[in-house]
Amino acid sequence: MNTSEKLSAFYARLEELYRLRCVTGLLNWDQQVFMPPQASDFRAAQLESMGRLIHQRETENQFVDLVQGLFDQLETLNDDDKVNVLETHRAVERARKLPESFVAEQSKVCALSYSAWCVARPANDFKSVAPHLTKIVELARQEADLVGYAEHPYDALLDQYEPYARLSQIKPVLTRLGEKLSRLYPRIQEKIGVVAELHGEFAEEQQRRLCERIARDVGYDFERGRLDKTHHPFESSLGPRDVRITTRYSSSNYLSTVFTTLHETGHALYELGLPERHKGTPLGSAVSLGVHESQSRLWENIVGRSPQFSRYLHGLLGEIFPDEQKRTNAEQIWQQCNKVAPSLIRVEADEVTYSLHVVVRLVLEEQLISGALSVSELPGAWDQMYQRYLGISSPHHKDGVLQDVHWYGGMLGYFPTYALGNIYAGCIYEKALSDLPGLEHGFERGEFRPLLEWLRVQVHQHGMRHKPLTLVERICGHAVNEAPFLKYLADKFGCEQHD
Amino acid sequence: MNTSEKLSAFYARLEELYRLRCVTGLLNWDQQVFMPPQASDFRAAQLESMGRLIHQRETENQFVDLVQGLFDQLETLNDDDKVNVLETHRAVERARKLPESFVAEQSKVCALSYSAWCVARPANDFKSVAPHLTKIVELARQEADLVGYAEHPYDALLDQYEPYARLSQIKPVLTRLGEKLSRLYPRIQEKIGVVAELHGEFAEEQQRRLCERIARDVGYDFERGRLDKTHHPFESSLGPRDVRITTRYSSSNYLSTVFTTLHETGHALYELGLPERHKGTPLGSAVSLGVHESQSRLWENIVGRSPQFSRYLHGLLGEIFPDEQKRTNAEQIWQQCNKVAPSLIRVEADEVTYSLHVVVRLVLEEQLISGALSVSELPGAWDQMYQRYLGISSPHHKDGVLQDVHWYGGMLGYFPTYALGNIYAGCIYEKALSDLPGLEHGFERGEFRPLLEWLRVQVHQHGMRHKPLTLVERICGHAVNEAPFLKYLADKFGCEQHD
Repeated sequence: MNTSEKLSAFYARLEELYRLRCVTGLLNWDQQVFMPPQASDFRAAQLESMGRLIHQRETENQFVDLVQGLFDQLETLNDDDKVNVLETHRAVERARKLPESFVAEQSKVCALSYSAWCVARPANDFKSVAPHLTKIVELARQEADLVGYAEHPYDALLDQYEPYARLSQIKPVLTRLGEKLSRLYPRIQEKIGVVAELHGEFAEEQQRRLCERIARDVGYDFERGRLDKTHHPFESSLGPRDVRITTRYSSSNYLSTVFTTLHETGHALYELGLPERHKGTPLGSAVSLGVHESQSRLWENIVGRSPQFSRYLHGLLGEIFPDEQKRTNAEQIWQQCNKVAPSLIRVEADEVTYSLHVVVRLVLEEQLISGALSVSELPGAWDQMYQRYLGISSPHHKDGVLQDVHWYGGMLGYFPTYALGNIYAGCIYEKALSDLPGLEHGFERGEFRPLLEWLRVQVHQHGMRHKPLTLVERICGHAVNEAPFLKYLADKFGCEQHD
Repeated sequence: MNTSEKLSAFYARLEELYRLRCVTGLLNWDQQVFMPPQASDFRAAQLESMGRLIHQRETENQFVDLVQGLFDQLETLNDDDKVNVLETHRAVERARKLPESFVAEQSKVCALSYSAWCVARPANDFKSVAPHLTKIVELARQEADLVGYAEHPYDALLDQYEPYARLSQIKPVLTRLGEKLSRLYPRIQEKIGVVAELHGEFAEEQQRRLCERIARDVGYDFERGRLDKTHHPFESSLGPRDVRITTRYSSSNYLSTVFTTLHETGHALYELGLPERHKGTPLGSAVSLGVHESQSRLWENIVGRSPQFSRYLHGLLGEIFPDEQKRTNAEQIWQQCNKVAPSLIRVEADEVTYSLHVVVRLVLEEQLISGALSVSELPGAWDQMYQRYLGISSPHHKDGVLQDVHWYGGMLGYFPTYALGNIYAGCIYEKALSDLPGLEHGFERGEFRPLLEWLRVQVHQHGMRHKPLTLVERICGHAVNEAPFLKYLADKFGCEQHD
């Protein structure tokens, strides 16, 4: 085969893999949104079959040789093909380094552990899942050894979620962020004082209309997506023109629904902004979970919790919850979506203290992987870290070390991407404001398009063309660091930083 | 491999194929129920990839050899394995006889023809699709030659939908049915006279509740299914415990919604009644489309349009449409769901004249396949047949020869199964009444379980254990014929048959 034939075969296989992965996406989406209760065993079997099939086609000798051949002649390729071959080679290499028996063992251990966690969390029973977690940590260390790493075994895990990131880069940034936030949040908390609770009953149908209106206004396209209800909201990319979002409805707190929806909409806008001509290839794919999270948090927090957005939202209430509109005002809405206080549960944390939950997890993950901490010591270490960063600790494991599924489902190295999202969002938004001065005033009138267009050009359209850190640095013009995010918070709440 | 190892490998592949076919089922279901409009091109590509993948795994040499090996030792197998091997062998043989290039050509021609029909039908433009239909008929003849047949090329097409059926068996029955119905319906029409139109506006949400209530009462399990809205209602089997139904809502006619739902529920009850221990194998599969249709029509027409059901339905209105309940009575409901009159559109036809539409199509299909009729002569022949059997003809092709998608989508040989459904239902229900005398009186009180349990034992649990005709004959104890269905109609409307 000549190069052009090789490239054709290469892209044909990528296209096929993309179609099949999106099929798996639909199986997952349906499972969480509409599937009848008794269908779950068969659905699990279907997911397993699809997973095996995709793995086979991804690691087939012929395809691996093709990718290797193109990788060996990387310098002869044009820029687009170069990125696609390079990133596919990285993915295929990782997959190949893991023997099928290891992958099967890991899947089994993770599935058993997940099932055990589902029972253990409500029962507050850490002991029963500890042996599972011990195995997961062992396998994660083995995985790191099999995959290989330059500096720290943790890098090999992190790389799955935040490609090219290293512990030696992100740990200093995140721990600095942690130290500074743990000094900043008490001052913010003091400043905003006690905020009145939201009262009322908000009908689901109206909340849905409100969320659809907001999603549409910020630029989500219902011709290429839809909004449904689920227990654990998520965004799901089922094709280049099929990016769906989900939300959950709190009958007593429509604001919670709005921000959940806005978060998932942020993810969806990124996916819908990826270049369609590159669909199914690295150039048409999101660059990292950290950058993904920067988009969701930017829309949820920086835009959604701004005073301008509160005024826009107060306006919308007139059509949908007219009684609530009369009962409240934009200032009160702003206060209600900007409560700041240390809390035990990460997913319920406010914009300021949220990253502290992540720092706790990163420190503990590193110690688990390096062997400095055993699983049996984990709950104690967890409490110490919460005391240190948030000044509180949980009386129950279920609100402590058992609260998140990640570790028990085998996802070690995932957590840092949540805080990286905040840091990236800080860097990106600072530049957006400097490129589009006064940008935020449009929010009040429901004008979000200038920001979306800017994000499309700066972030979305690049796919995986640059490494995540490079992408953000090209946008903001300096090394990625925590300062813009901290400055944004300090300015927003009118608190000077003392560092 | 010894026999037991061969059987393990055989069943493992059937299980995998079943999982993948149900994945395709979900892609189709989603496409018709929830998929965003712009996702259709990519969805078509996904369906094509899944189709290719399934075809490959179904016709892989290793599997074909395995099936052939087991087929060669059929007499050594137990009864269950015998059926599964025999029926799988039949399917694999058919698939193997069609070269991949032929299948690809046929898919392409059908897809183009379908697209052309979508434009041509509303434009009333038969000429533009005629060349497509000509190709489809040619390919169908080629398919029959490739697959082989004992008596008539039509048998090879029919066999896909009604296994083992032959034109020489079904044509006499269906044409006799046609002759008798064309004499019976005018007498019924005269007898029932003019029926007042249904008036009112019926909110969709309430109609949904009514349909869910009825589906539940007849025995549909919402733990293993769900009811959604679509344009062209259908039943979709996505797994042994995941059988979904869809309906459409007519705001001015809740009865139309009820009967559409009841029809799809009938299909679903069959699928949910197939033996789960045989899932994915012929013993766990519906035996034919004719038998499938017998179940949907039995619930829709024989049960649903009975006077007892009308009384049950009038009772339900109290909770859901109380105004309508006061405005009407059970007798009026019965009249409104038992209007009889010749009409142009098959899918809107009443219980009595419906089969006449099918007979017209069967006669024309046979002539197209045998070459006695050319596509250009089809519209003229269509009008003649409608005049002969229904005494009317359409001023527009769109309500005539263009009304159904089947031919233009390549489904020749499908239509007879609709009328076979009526004939089978007549035979089956006659026996149900003789086994369970007074059965119909329970319907008034919402007691449908005795009938469902009887159908499960008599029909559902057998899967493909018997040939379709054998199955029905075992139940009713005599050769399948049109008499019980005609007698049911004559009795119902109090008209003697004069033949």
